[in-house]
Amino acid sequence: MEPDPTVTDPQLYKILFENDRVRVLRYTDKPGDRTKPHAHPDSVLITLSKFQRRLTVGDRTVDVEKSPHEVIWNAAQTHVGENTGTTDTDVIFVELK
Amino acid sequence: MEPDPTVTDPQLYKILFENDRVRVLRYTDKPGDRTKPHAHPDSVLITLSKFQRRLTVGDRTVDVEKSPHEVIWNAAQTHVGENTGTTDTDVIFVELK
Repeated sequence: MEPDPTVTDPQLYKILFENDRVRVLRYTDKPGDRTKPHAHPDSVLITLSKFQRRLTVGDRTVDVEKSPHEVIWNAAQTHVGENTGTTDTDVIFVELK
Repeated sequence: MEPDPTVTDPQLYKILFENDRVRVLRYTDKPGDRTKPHAHPDSVLITLSKFQRRLTVGDRTVDVEKSPHEVIWNAAQTHVGENTGTTDTDVIFVELK
């Protein structure tokens, strides 16, 4: 899906694995970091750190607070994410093809 | 796929999430624990702990040693796993449908 987060924010997203069924990304940032608008297909997120973020999807803004080792289903979407907390974000995205 | 690990080893596998595209399992065990034979579809594994295991797939046996936050592709297979180390295993399976 476009725009691809590994293109819009290559300093924040790394590709860990890819085949014909999935692409696995690791997203890491620091407090105050903010992504450019980007899209994910249907994905499973696994949190590795505790963090607080503000997500903007279209005209909706939502503040989330997560703990390590949570599993979150994200239906395909375009969004912006901003680290609004005091800890680094560390997340694995399993993007489905 | 059968036999389902949440049926063969319900004390080791917990279902964290399920929809029409994925089933997400968390597997945790202690040194010396051994699963019954069970099957996974194509899956992405995310390790949460450091561990050593012996995997038996058909007549092949392989010893693996993993660190936290590794990502591993597992093509559909039937196997037995045994914790051969001194630390607990903690893994998330994202099973693809």
